Amino acid sequence: MEDKKLFDFAVDETLNIFVLIKSAEVRVAKNGKDFLSMVFEDRSGDIGGKFWDASSEDIDNFQAGKVVFLNGKRENYKGTPQIKILSMRVATETEPNNASLYTKKAPMTVSDMKEEISQLLFDITNPNWNRVVRFLIQKYDQQFYTYPAAKTNHHAFQGGLAFHTISILRLAKNVSDQYPQIDRSLLYAGAILHDLGKTIELSGPVSTTYTVEGNLLGHIVIMDGEIVKACQELKISDSSEDILLLRHMIVSHHGLKEYGSPIEPLLLEAVVLHDLDDLDASIQMVTGALSHTKAGTFSERIFGMDGRNFYKRISHQKE
Amino acid sequence: MEDKKLFDFAVDETLNIFVLIKSAEVRVAKNGKDFLSMVFEDRSGDIGGKFWDASSEDIDNFQAGKVVFLNGKRENYKGTPQIKILSMRVATETEPNNASLYTKKAPMTVSDMKEEISQLLFDITNPNWNRVVRFLIQKYDQQFYTYPAAKTNHHAFQGGLAFHTISILRLAKNVSDQYPQIDRSLLYAGAILHDLGKTIELSGPVSTTYTVEGNLLGHIVIMDGEIVKACQELKISDSSEDILLLRHMIVSHHGLKEYGSPIEPLLLEAVVLHDLDDLDASIQMVTGALSHTKAGTFSERIFGMDGRNFYKRISHQKE
Amino acid sequence: MEDKKLFDFAVDETLNIFVLIKSAEVRVAKNGKDFLSMVFEDRSGDIGGKFWDASSEDIDNFQAGKVVFLNGKRENYKGTPQIKILSMRVATETEPNNASLYTKKAPMTVSDMKEEISQLLFDITNPNWNRVVRFLIQKYDQQFYTYPAAKTNHHAFQGGLAFHTISILRLAKNVSDQYPQIDRSLLYAGAILHDLGKTIELSGPVSTTYTVEGNLLGHIVIMDGEIVKACQELKISDSSEDILLLRHMIVSHHGLKEYGSPIEPLLLEAVVLHDLDDLDASIQMVTGALSHTKAGTFSERIFGMDGRNFYKRISHQKE
Amino acid sequence: MEDKKLFDFAVDETLNIFVLIKSAEVRVAKNGKDFLSMVFEDRSGDIGGKFWDASSEDIDNFQAGKVVFLNGKRENYKGTPQIKILSMRVATETEPNNASLYTKKAPMTVSDMKEEISQLLFDITNPNWNRVVRFLIQKYDQQFYTYPAAKTNHHAFQGGLAFHTISILRLAKNVSDQYPQIDRSLLYAGAILHDLGKTIELSGPVSTTYTVEGNLLGHIVIMDGEIVKACQELKISDSSEDILLLRHMIVSHHGLKEYGSPIEPLLLEAVVLHDLDDLDASIQMVTGALSHTKAGTFSERIFGMDGRNFYKRISHQKE
Amino acid sequence: MEDKKLFDFAVDETLNIFVLIKSAEVRVAKNGKDFLSMVFEDRSGDIGGKFWDASSEDIDNFQAGKVVFLNGKRENYKGTPQIKILSMRVATETEPNNASLYTKKAPMTVSDMKEEISQLLFDITNPNWNRVVRFLIQKYDQQFYTYPAAKTNHHAFQGGLAFHTISILRLAKNVSDQYPQIDRSLLYAGAILHDLGKTIELSGPVSTTYTVEGNLLGHIVIMDGEIVKACQELKISDSSEDILLLRHMIVSHHGLKEYGSPIEPLLLEAVVLHDLDDLDASIQMVTGALSHTKAGTFSERIFGMDGRNFYKRISHQKE
Amino acid sequence: MEDKKLFDFAVDETLNIFVLIKSAEVRVAKNGKDFLSMVFEDRSGDIGGKFWDASSEDIDNFQAGKVVFLNGKRENYKGTPQIKILSMRVATETEPNNASLYTKKAPMTVSDMKEEISQLLFDITNPNWNRVVRFLIQKYDQQFYTYPAAKTNHHAFQGGLAFHTISILRLAKNVSDQYPQIDRSLLYAGAILHDLGKTIELSGPVSTTYTVEGNLLGHIVIMDGEIVKACQELKISDSSEDILLLRHMIVSHHGLKEYGSPIEPLLLEAVVLHDLDDLDASIQMVTGALSHTKAGTFSERIFGMDGRNFYKRISHQKE
Repeated sequence: MEDKKLFDFAVDETLNIFVLIKSAEVRVAKNGKDFLSMVFEDRSGDIGGKFWDASSEDIDNFQAGKVVFLNGKRENYKGTPQIKILSMRVATETEPNNASLYTKKAPMTVSDMKEEISQLLFDITNPNWNRVVRFLIQKYDQQFYTYPAAKTNHHAFQGGLAFHTISILRLAKNVSDQYPQIDRSLLYAGAILHDLGKTIELSGPVSTTYTVEGNLLGHIVIMDGEIVKACQELKISDSSEDILLLRHMIVSHHGLKEYGSPIEPLLLEAVVLHDLDDLDASIQMVTGALSHTKAGTFSERIFGMDGRNFYKRISHQKE
Repeated sequence: MEDKKLFDFAVDETLNIFVLIKSAEVRVAKNGKDFLSMVFEDRSGDIGGKFWDASSEDIDNFQAGKVVFLNGKRENYKGTPQIKILSMRVATETEPNNASLYTKKAPMTVSDMKEEISQLLFDITNPNWNRVVRFLIQKYDQQFYTYPAAKTNHHAFQGGLAFHTISILRLAKNVSDQYPQIDRSLLYAGAILHDLGKTIELSGPVSTTYTVEGNLLGHIVIMDGEIVKACQELKISDSSEDILLLRHMIVSHHGLKEYGSPIEPLLLEAVVLHDLDDLDASIQMVTGALSHTKAGTFSERIFGMDGRNFYKRISHQKE
Repeated sequence: MEDKKLFDFAVDETLNIFVLIKSAEVRVAKNGKDFLSMVFEDRSGDIGGKFWDASSEDIDNFQAGKVVFLNGKRENYKGTPQIKILSMRVATETEPNNASLYTKKAPMTVSDMKEEISQLLFDITNPNWNRVVRFLIQKYDQQFYTYPAAKTNHHAFQGGLAFHTISILRLAKNVSDQYPQIDRSLLYAGAILHDLGKTIELSGPVSTTYTVEGNLLGHIVIMDGEIVKACQELKISDSSEDILLLRHMIVSHHGLKEYGSPIEPLLLEAVVLHDLDDLDASIQMVTGALSHTKAGTFSERIFGMDGRNFYKRISHQKE
Repeated sequence: MEDKKLFDFAVDETLNIFVLIKSAEVRVAKNGKDFLSMVFEDRSGDIGGKFWDASSEDIDNFQAGKVVFLNGKRENYKGTPQIKILSMRVATETEPNNASLYTKKAPMTVSDMKEEISQLLFDITNPNWNRVVRFLIQKYDQQFYTYPAAKTNHHAFQGGLAFHTISILRLAKNVSDQYPQIDRSLLYAGAILHDLGKTIELSGPVSTTYTVEGNLLGHIVIMDGEIVKACQELKISDSSEDILLLRHMIVSHHGLKEYGSPIEPLLLEAVVLHDLDDLDASIQMVTGALSHTKAGTFSERIFGMDGRNFYKRISHQKE
Repeated sequence: MEDKKLFDFAVDETLNIFVLIKSAEVRVAKNGKDFLSMVFEDRSGDIGGKFWDASSEDIDNFQAGKVVFLNGKRENYKGTPQIKILSMRVATETEPNNASLYTKKAPMTVSDMKEEISQLLFDITNPNWNRVVRFLIQKYDQQFYTYPAAKTNHHAFQGGLAFHTISILRLAKNVSDQYPQIDRSLLYAGAILHDLGKTIELSGPVSTTYTVEGNLLGHIVIMDGEIVKACQELKISDSSEDILLLRHMIVSHHGLKEYGSPIEPLLLEAVVLHDLDDLDASIQMVTGALSHTKAGTFSERIFGMDGRNFYKRISHQKE
Repeated sequence: MEDKKLFDFAVDETLNIFVLIKSAEVRVAKNGKDFLSMVFEDRSGDIGGKFWDASSEDIDNFQAGKVVFLNGKRENYKGTPQIKILSMRVATETEPNNASLYTKKAPMTVSDMKEEISQLLFDITNPNWNRVVRFLIQKYDQQFYTYPAAKTNHHAFQGGLAFHTISILRLAKNVSDQYPQIDRSLLYAGAILHDLGKTIELSGPVSTTYTVEGNLLGHIVIMDGEIVKACQELKISDSSEDILLLRHMIVSHHGLKEYGSPIEPLLLEAVVLHDLDDLDASIQMVTGALSHTKAGTFSERIFGMDGRNFYKRISHQKE
């Protein structure tokens, strides 16, 4: 076993490392036998490979979420890296078989993120909002700092949910400073809770899928229900103006009915939350796509940006 | 005082009756004085009139929701009936000044509606759904049987909410009989609760407007919150499959995101509920518009039917 | 030859049965030789298979609509059943080579459907509508009871057109009972004729495609022309109010211009017909998709339902 | 009586002339009395005026379509000409009381239009199309040369239907010359029949409204039915390829389902017909609006051109 | 003459002050005489009034843009303030007749805005962008600091264009600090130029309308042309990557083709510019509308925010 | 080497000819080796073929735009012709290796097109337009007569840009003759320049792609900038009415914002230019698709015509 990661190997170099199976789909080859179309992952990124002549035992063993010891060769196909699989076995109990060791992570540690959120909570001076936010952040503490913010689009990595939330809060701080008519407490409270329902909508940080509850209700309705329950517990009226405003922040944050908000923003702070959510998600998606793009060319189509191809400039970005 | 109603008077006939002020808007006349543009209502229908040279005292007295004794003359203007107001005074405590005596009503008595709903509850054989529905129907019992189903579109009359619900339940009964794959319990439970949130979204049976809670959350989110709270009270898990299905019925019943459902129907019963809701509302709107239309001509544009003008046929409808 | 059907065989079991070729597309394999990508059908359902190294004679022989004697092995690929073809030959004249023996059918016999339609005709009391409907039902009698209601979406099976019509008529009966303002005669007449133009738009019950006339005019315009011709034959004015109403029922039944109705519904009965047509088609599509779905999971995307995935619940549907 | 027309009088000049009442709407004045908001018309154009203190006899007499002898004064209000009505009486039998003397007309005589159409018929060399076109042009001969092409938009004047048709035919001639792959016969036949159904959809050349048949079926379906009947009379199969192509030309000529074509153009000639129809209508609408616009300014919003305001240039248009 | 402003007078108080005529439309009263429907303006806000029995001399005198000495009475109509005009005369040369004394202004002085822009220019370190921006800011210096940012929507006041630009630049500063992958120079250069074309599209700071050039080309195309010309003057290639990027910032800043950008954002900085432009405009529009709204109620519909009504909360906004 | 072209060979015939590589994509075969999926082109048309077991040297050699000597066999696969490649080598300097010898061309020679354009220039009698058009036509003379009008849709062949322009001019001539209110000079000037920006937006006549400038600005903005620069050179004001009109013609010629025109047509001539552009493009696309379609069947879906399948009639097109 080596210490190198998937993207540390040169083309044609042989590798013997532990990796996570991100996905594994069974397909039938021309010779009539099954093969597995696989994606491997570690913290250096994702890379694909084919496992030929898969027996039904192989199909059972090599499923998404498993850590395997992979013996293969790094290859290149039309500029896309791939792995030629020579052999593969599932990691044992005594080996580093914890999936979370291999998934990408937010660029902040959990404790730094917790610290930053904690500080910001002091700026939510309205006691009702403060109590509800603290209650829910605590209730879903573990998930909040490990879940991704989405299945595939923006911030689709471990801790992405909390990191996306913090990025919005940082923007919110500056905007509240610049425009004093904004209620900072309401904007912060809405920002912290707006996507927290994803801890129930999504299955978890590894091999993320939608839960049944996520599909049938969606994270907006889920979080609204959580606020209602929190109010019950905390003996706060769920139809006081304070709580109506907070619920409206969550309910309206997708901005338009077409995007899943049953009610569109009717508060200044709701408009700002929606715009900052969009802004951070867009910056993250475009930055991600451009990081794989050659200077002077256009990126792949970015699904979350209306399928547009973004340009990576040639000249120095910083002069 | 007479026993005749607004539409019982012939053109040019003088009337002296109690009526309800449905709306009263202050406007300025060419001579610079205020006047009131009013709509009067009793169970025979709505009719407009102008109160000239209104003093600020008049403006305070003659507000929407008040019952007045009206002395006037029935007139006709371009086929539209109107009232020439000669004099008017607010009804006293000892006179029939209860607004609900003058508003249009559902074509069933409250007790008949209660009876029919009660019978149907026995067909909700799933205990979780049965308990939640009984709990909420009882909690909003008084409003459910008196509120309209909407501010201006379909079933915009006293008791309209319960009557619309019963009409859907009758359709649901036949559809469940015809298609045995439909879960009757779920369809009934969803039908009873689908619009119950309007008891919070709307202000009441008279001079109906939207409440602040109605505007900021909408009846779909409101009712979902009510189900969550009912589950707390009844000690039922709000994320059990039973309750997820019921919540989905309410959340999806507008059919499309554009119409305010954050999640679109993903259950057979949810599709059926949406379709029957639409069907009953459409029949009610078209029937209402045609009741004022001359045979061989087209109705006024019906807002809730894409603004189309419906045709009233000449030949006998029943042969 | 055996009596078992395609879906009666276990995985890995060998089969020797007559089946219908539902479709057969020529493709080129990696080795440069042609193969046939085939779908076989009998009344137990559809199942795919590949015929390798197809000669041009094979391609001529094994075309859609042909009955073949199939020697093969039932296999499974990712949960989807398939057939490994060992050998195959076209059925002879003396064998059961009538395609209609192998196609799925409506869950009613033709004679039961005819009987039910016949009874309902008595409720069309308007003589003009009654005569036109009888004339056209008789003119296309044979096709009406054997054609599918669509090429691929809902009721895409033999007799589907008549069965879909009967389902709508049953709904129409109950709705007419519940809402007496509906003209039952007009609703029934419209329901019977609304899709009858599909007998000209589609090629027939087996290997259904669109005809040139279907593509260039569509079943709505086709049926309107048929009503005009029927009126000529029956000496009824095609612009009398009765016939205008009936033509409007057909012309408007897709509900919106975007869906191919040049005129949108302007009669109460036209609105109801459109809604019941949609309701029955939706129920049929969702039911069909869920019949292949595992409990607790979501169905494949249903094209005719905006591409949504429907949920199959875990708990008992009937309690 | 004078020979001058409405637009021949200077501001403040008194006029005593026969004019047609184009429209007359009853309204109520501030003093509670009815007045008529009228539009008068002669071949110089349209001009409005108010008839105060209208008795019910006046309202009966002065209806749209009546010719009146008008005594009034030409005035100007914000650049819009208007008539101050001094007195008015309905023209008698012995006076020039034929409405058609006062309506705007196509810039060609009926006989010139007939002549031009006749010549073009010779270029429809396909005998089936030629016979159907001749049959229908003859059947609706009188209406074709007097009806407008629309109620209010383009070519909304007497003879507008035939003139619009001829304009398209002239364009069609040049396009057929330039692109030999176009079937000239089919394009001409489609062009002549495409709007002929408006002779049934609209009420006539004066005070044009939609007929019940027009509202319930629309001119596209109406004309398709007429072609079917013509084929019956002429013993031509209505489902021969020739007739399917011709019917498709009519059915598809609005270009998109949203604009009322149940089937969109699938023939080269159908695409061309739709484009030329649009082109001529656009030119006519823009030209009409600019004729009332001051140089260097923008026209009123043109409804049929997406509500845009067109620019009338300052510099000479012809240099 | 007094020192008080329009909104300093109580209801029923008499006023004698200089004000600007913001607009004056000629209309006809019931008595047949012309009157002027006027809006007066000073720095306290806008207020309407009617000038009855206007002679043609009055109509010539009292036009938009003129300063008048107004003798009138402050009144109230349905909560909307208005002026009863008693007499009025145009201000003379020796009186304060400069329109700009009466128009609302940006909440910063011109010199402060110039100072802030000047400082920011130093952060545009790319020499090509720096030169082009300086050239154009200087060329339109006078207009840039006095024009509004729009005719009626957001920042529709004197200096609104520069103030809106500065607000975006402040947001841009923070966003560039937070996301180092953003090219600060490009974002600043784009922000400064994005709406500068409005100095040509609009007529000026008083009684703002669209110019012919504004209508025919729009400020996006106008500004692109200005950059091209600036490059000519400065001897910079207008198709170097630097200039293409800058032109793309301007061309794409409306975000979508539907909103008038012929090309949608394909650079990270272009996405950010569009989002910040939207954000500042939304905050300004909502803040403006809420400033006239009573607590606990909803504002008038805001045209630029999809016609939504925003909520003004009851509870303290700052706790 | 032979003189025959790709489509001159019968199925199974061996060919040894020079052809152009239109495109060559590297793919991986089942055996793990690379192969090239190629399209060959000469003036008889396009035809595909696979080059198996491609070495990296082969991949470098056989790129789009190269002329090769091809030894192969003409085959047929499902009605689509293809080439079985036996061997292949790049053409040498002394062989006919100029790509333009093998690409499809407009059906007019360059000198004929130049001649026709030259003649039409005399009809642009406005001196400003005439000078700008002559200046730009001369500046891009070489590209204008060799570039295609699009990458893949209509007129995607060498010289297609000039040929499409001439086709529009021919239509424009007839339309200007028929409607004298059209300013012929303006229409011609707009027609000649409307797509000239494609000489910068596209990479060239062979293996056409979009340039970076094309992607970031689009041909509409590019050409507007070119007109501005031409005016600088020619000392014509770029904001005189003449030039505003001409710029508007180019800016608006896509007809709708959604199609990339930042300003929609506001001149009669701009409407006509857009319509004629559409008409010629539609005729070209449908004609092209039908040329490969069997009589009595429908063409492949045409992307530029909303994905519709067009019908190729059976009966003689010319009778």
